[in-house]
Amino acid sequence: MRINSKTNLLLLCVFSIQLFSQHTVPQKDLSSYVNPFVGTKGEGNTFPGAVAPFGMIQLSPDTDIENWGAASGYEYTDSLLYGFSLTHFSGTGIPDLGDFLIVPSVGKIKTFGGKKSEYSQQSYRTPFTHNKEKASPAYYQVELPQHKINCELTASERAGVLKFTFPAGDSSNILIDLKHVLQSHVTWASVRIENDSTITGYHQVKGWARDRKVYFAARFSKKFNTSAIYKNGKQVMYSPFKTYRFVSDREMADTNIQVVVSYKTKAQEVILMKVAISGVSAVNALLNLDTEIPHWNFEQVRNTTREQWNKELGKVEINSKDQNKETFYSSLYHLFLTPFTYQDADSSYFGMNKSANKAVGFKNYTVFSLWDTYRAVHPYFMLVQQERNKDMISSMLAHYDQSPNHLLPVWSFYGNETWCMVGYHAVPVIADAVLKELKGLDVNKCYNAVRNTAMNPDYDNVKLYAELGYLPFDIENESVSKTLEYAYNDYCIALMAKKLGKTSDYDLFMKRAMSYKNLFDKSKGYMNGKDSKGRWRKNFGIDLYSETLEERDFTEGTSRQYSWYVPQDVNGLKMLMGEKAFEQKLDSLFVETRTDKAPDEEIGSIGNYWHGNEPSHHIVYLYNYVNKPWKTQKMIHQIVDSQYGNQPHSLCGNDDCGQMSAWYLFACMGFYPVCPSSENYIIGSPCIEEITLHLSNKKDLEIKAIGLSKGNIYIQGMSLNGKDWDKTYLPYNEIKNGGKIIYRMGAQPSKWGTSVKSIPPTQD
Amino acid sequence: MRINSKTNLLLLCVFSIQLFSQHTVPQKDLSSYVNPFVGTKGEGNTFPGAVAPFGMIQLSPDTDIENWGAASGYEYTDSLLYGFSLTHFSGTGIPDLGDFLIVPSVGKIKTFGGKKSEYSQQSYRTPFTHNKEKASPAYYQVELPQHKINCELTASERAGVLKFTFPAGDSSNILIDLKHVLQSHVTWASVRIENDSTITGYHQVKGWARDRKVYFAARFSKKFNTSAIYKNGKQVMYSPFKTYRFVSDREMADTNIQVVVSYKTKAQEVILMKVAISGVSAVNALLNLDTEIPHWNFEQVRNTTREQWNKELGKVEINSKDQNKETFYSSLYHLFLTPFTYQDADSSYFGMNKSANKAVGFKNYTVFSLWDTYRAVHPYFMLVQQERNKDMISSMLAHYDQSPNHLLPVWSFYGNETWCMVGYHAVPVIADAVLKELKGLDVNKCYNAVRNTAMNPDYDNVKLYAELGYLPFDIENESVSKTLEYAYNDYCIALMAKKLGKTSDYDLFMKRAMSYKNLFDKSKGYMNGKDSKGRWRKNFGIDLYSETLEERDFTEGTSRQYSWYVPQDVNGLKMLMGEKAFEQKLDSLFVETRTDKAPDEEIGSIGNYWHGNEPSHHIVYLYNYVNKPWKTQKMIHQIVDSQYGNQPHSLCGNDDCGQMSAWYLFACMGFYPVCPSSENYIIGSPCIEEITLHLSNKKDLEIKAIGLSKGNIYIQGMSLNGKDWDKTYLPYNEIKNGGKIIYRMGAQPSKWGTSVKSIPPTQD
Repeated sequence: MRINSKTNLLLLCVFSIQLFSQHTVPQKDLSSYVNPFVGTKGEGNTFPGAVAPFGMIQLSPDTDIENWGAASGYEYTDSLLYGFSLTHFSGTGIPDLGDFLIVPSVGKIKTFGGKKSEYSQQSYRTPFTHNKEKASPAYYQVELPQHKINCELTASERAGVLKFTFPAGDSSNILIDLKHVLQSHVTWASVRIENDSTITGYHQVKGWARDRKVYFAARFSKKFNTSAIYKNGKQVMYSPFKTYRFVSDREMADTNIQVVVSYKTKAQEVILMKVAISGVSAVNALLNLDTEIPHWNFEQVRNTTREQWNKELGKVEINSKDQNKETFYSSLYHLFLTPFTYQDADSSYFGMNKSANKAVGFKNYTVFSLWDTYRAVHPYFMLVQQERNKDMISSMLAHYDQSPNHLLPVWSFYGNETWCMVGYHAVPVIADAVLKELKGLDVNKCYNAVRNTAMNPDYDNVKLYAELGYLPFDIENESVSKTLEYAYNDYCIALMAKKLGKTSDYDLFMKRAMSYKNLFDKSKGYMNGKDSKGRWRKNFGIDLYSETLEERDFTEGTSRQYSWYVPQDVNGLKMLMGEKAFEQKLDSLFVETRTDKAPDEEIGSIGNYWHGNEPSHHIVYLYNYVNKPWKTQKMIHQIVDSQYGNQPHSLCGNDDCGQMSAWYLFACMGFYPVCPSSENYIIGSPCIEEITLHLSNKKDLEIKAIGLSKGNIYIQGMSLNGKDWDKTYLPYNEIKNGGKIIYRMGAQPSKWGTSVKSIPPTQD
Repeated sequence: MRINSKTNLLLLCVFSIQLFSQHTVPQKDLSSYVNPFVGTKGEGNTFPGAVAPFGMIQLSPDTDIENWGAASGYEYTDSLLYGFSLTHFSGTGIPDLGDFLIVPSVGKIKTFGGKKSEYSQQSYRTPFTHNKEKASPAYYQVELPQHKINCELTASERAGVLKFTFPAGDSSNILIDLKHVLQSHVTWASVRIENDSTITGYHQVKGWARDRKVYFAARFSKKFNTSAIYKNGKQVMYSPFKTYRFVSDREMADTNIQVVVSYKTKAQEVILMKVAISGVSAVNALLNLDTEIPHWNFEQVRNTTREQWNKELGKVEINSKDQNKETFYSSLYHLFLTPFTYQDADSSYFGMNKSANKAVGFKNYTVFSLWDTYRAVHPYFMLVQQERNKDMISSMLAHYDQSPNHLLPVWSFYGNETWCMVGYHAVPVIADAVLKELKGLDVNKCYNAVRNTAMNPDYDNVKLYAELGYLPFDIENESVSKTLEYAYNDYCIALMAKKLGKTSDYDLFMKRAMSYKNLFDKSKGYMNGKDSKGRWRKNFGIDLYSETLEERDFTEGTSRQYSWYVPQDVNGLKMLMGEKAFEQKLDSLFVETRTDKAPDEEIGSIGNYWHGNEPSHHIVYLYNYVNKPWKTQKMIHQIVDSQYGNQPHSLCGNDDCGQMSAWYLFACMGFYPVCPSSENYIIGSPCIEEITLHLSNKKDLEIKAIGLSKGNIYIQGMSLNGKDWDKTYLPYNEIKNGGKIIYRMGAQPSKWGTSVKSIPPTQD
């Protein structure tokens, strides 16, 4: 199903003996371990198409344009293909993008796609099967049996090539449907046939992003035999006795626009179509295209992008069995897709300010799914993608500058704020970078941005929370989750304030960081909603997942899941619950009690623990706080074994722009950033025998799990940089300049790590 | 009704004795003679608002958003006002623009404008009367009695100021309606409340221009008391239990968007609102605003723009009675509105190529109503606005470069081609400039553009015309008019080819220029439609004005009117008709025979002669070709007296971006460019006693009509540069470096000019 060169695999085995001995980034074909189909079946919502690392263009097939369950446009179980569009999210829970569908066909031209749920003979949708389909990071291929066309895609950063091998025929067509997007509405589209082999256009989309504009340019390797624009399914042409004044058939604008070019082809004739996009203009789309792919060599683009993937994937080298390598590198691949480039070859991008801006001194990125990615994606970037993480933060600061609310992004893309999810989680990303002294950041600007965001008077009643110490459920929905997340965000600001010597701010935000205590309902032993008069919610249920906003105190979760959301003060939470109850409640999380789960919850669940969604992601590590590290270790292996893998169905929840994958990638190393911005990772249990991280500062962090096997999942002991390490946390300072972590694994829980007196941070 | 300073009038009388003695541009308040209301009643379709010379912003009141009869948004007979919008055409026959309506009010906020034809209490439309209304070129003022608000407008090139004097009250409001445009459809709008006193936004309009985008910025002199966005009439706000995720009240995008700011005002409190527009971005709209009007001094803007008007109007000084001065300078004012600036303070403009472009080496202009303006507007610019005319041609060449059809503009604005009217009349504008050796033009680029335009394979069957020597009426509508106009356009190309030494092109295009002969139906003695088999149309009528496209051979006219359209070879036409018949047919034109005239035809007509539309504009000068110059002289005065004046109803047809006014301005001087691009003007009869043109080359052309009076309209003799001149044509070479023309006028037709052997150009 995927590209899998046996030769390269053999080669890799030979090279792997050098694993710990080289500091330069190796150029092995690690991309051959990537299966882009991982996550395309079910909840993962990934796409299988061709894309460069963090690439702005994502050339990928679309099988579904209306369902949230296929937010990337592709669902593995589908059997009909719309065509190939130029942009795709990876792993989001809500569909958007899918700009500009490209549909090759032979014979009669169909300009209508139609709904997935209403198949029509008028539709250009066409059957495909997985046995005639391949994918690797820089390449996607599928045969369309109905038309006998072989389709191959490859991509550079902002441009791509579609290679169509046509049968012999008089009517070999390529259609571009400007009305096509995923789930959203094209409110306006405009196309120009620039010359005998070039087309440009744009559309305005009202979708998840409310006010989004994208331009495209396409060049074809062969002059059109014919070219025609369609408006509302009818060809645009001048008919002197009907249209009164001349109408050009070279350009048209409306809501429903397609353009079709046709050829006479010989058997197996290849037509190449180069495409590029821009958020700024048609001229910039052409600039991006001609800058990145000035030639007509499909293989050159594919090879160059594969080399880029190997360079990026090579930042983490592992030694394990092939199945693990496939899971690992597919995860790393998904991690390295988002946020992606959002600026043209001339550094200009269309921003929140409804204007083209030049990214000066940084590279502009977009797609910030921060409620997800602050947890493990950006912390992973702080290890091996520091330069990009810096640019991502600069992009967030530009968003802040342009935001009419003067807020850092919540969930943003393409110059739009979607306000999706809760909290202000740009803060931990920025704080983590500042506290870890990521070079090149304007620290004062960072601080002003996080502080102003936290002190804003409008967003989601943050001001009221600051005044009361919690959000009342009669005034704000999801009041418990919001209170808990604001408190964590405020902790991050407090740490920044401390570092910058802003004592009164430190006090202010550290006080706010303790707000979680105000919603711990001692009578229930869990977090509960409280109204504006200080009364607890009466219809409380530990496992209640409310369907109505008025009664919903938790965000996509239950009290049993969300009550653990105090990463900034787990010790404090433990004191509130009591140490024994803390452990018992953790235990109870992995036991099933609910009967009202949605199908997507069922899939990613272990009892009441829902790995398929982010609020649970840090929880298994919390056993360490009650000196039961072996329980953490056991659960991590259970999750890795049951919720990850190398198959299309192997992602148990939305990959969420890499967060689901990032959880796994940290798990493999044996530690996790339970509280990003704090100094310490919390130790879990390693899942890969040998890992070398080539850190961004050119140092290597080497991790070995000696004795690791299916049964040997418990840490018996470990050493850090040559010294025994018996703490269940791992300071960033100990690994930031590289080093060596060696875990000794065994089949039984051990005493290791059970006598840690206190895991920082502690607030007392 | 209009600003009319008695003091300035007196001052002008004192200065006027210097009329022929100074070469520097005088700074008299000629603007005080301008009545912007001329043409606002009836067919003129002008607007009365505030505007700078050739200014990109036209701040003007709108009373009508749906009728073609008020294409500028304002009809003098209306009694209800929508508000003030930022952009307006001057004199077009089709409505568009009217971007971003600004509505001051007190009390309850109304966000609905509604149709003119369906008045509703919900509408923000409000009564106004002309006795509380004033206008001068840089200023417009109206009181709104319902709200007791005094409104004053002034404008610079790309920005303007609205000055609202409010009564005391708690709810003094200013609404911006982004849905408002004239007749067109807003397909998308987006607004941002940037801070406590700044708003930006844009909308996408599907109108006469199909794919038009405009941005605006507004700054207010006082911080908002409240500010709110409305979507579909409902205020945009976050309601936690209804909207699920946060919604910002600082920005919104949809099709129907308004934003309202409100104040508490004291009695007679002034709120200033500065506005600017851009075709490129919100940031550029702010740039235009802050560059042009960095202060809050309304009078300073008004005075500066008035000075600019006086500088421009001062390029032509006249001596005549005040009523004539008012007609004259109102005409010159209208001439100096279009084409207008279409680039931002940083030289960028959004072009045909769906991209922001920098205008390098020229200033970009838009609104090219070329079927109208090639006749007399651009020829007048060749006398006193050469620099602008050069930039207008450069703008047309940029359009050509960006056009997917590789055609010069036909009727273009805001980066759109509307294809309105017929022919390719960018050609005579460019040819006239090249042949008259306008400095700074790339002559070869000009030639390639006109040639490629004429040789294009698509537009309005030009190719077929070139093959057959005429357009067949069974293949193309308005085939006679198109053939005649193509032939004239081709003559202009032939002259350019000759000048550039391109002999074979000269032969080719001169042959095409004679195509008119193929449609002269000798049996009728007039031009007639011919089908593709060479058969004349049988249901021919000299005065037939066909309602159906299939039967329409003439463009907005009849055979009796259009048969004269051979400006390039009047002598040839005369030979076809026979000299006596030629004169008789001219005579018959001024006699009424039709009973099926539309109301707009009735108004501008003298018999069958329709001065209210352009095809007739050269005809009265043709009596000279049969040595009856006195008939020309008589008709010119009849037209000037009956079809022009200084009152709101004084324009008998659409001013058409200045063409109607330019006809008058040439008439006043006693000559007219019957065939632009040719060397010669044709002499008519002067209508102003003394005129001095300060030509673009700093030379002065002085024109005197000695003895001119209401009765003395016939030329008895004339001298050119001190020598007697008895020809009825006037070579450009004789006046291009200034000079002196003296007409001696009398009450009776004279022998002057009756013995001219041949008026050039002659083709034999």
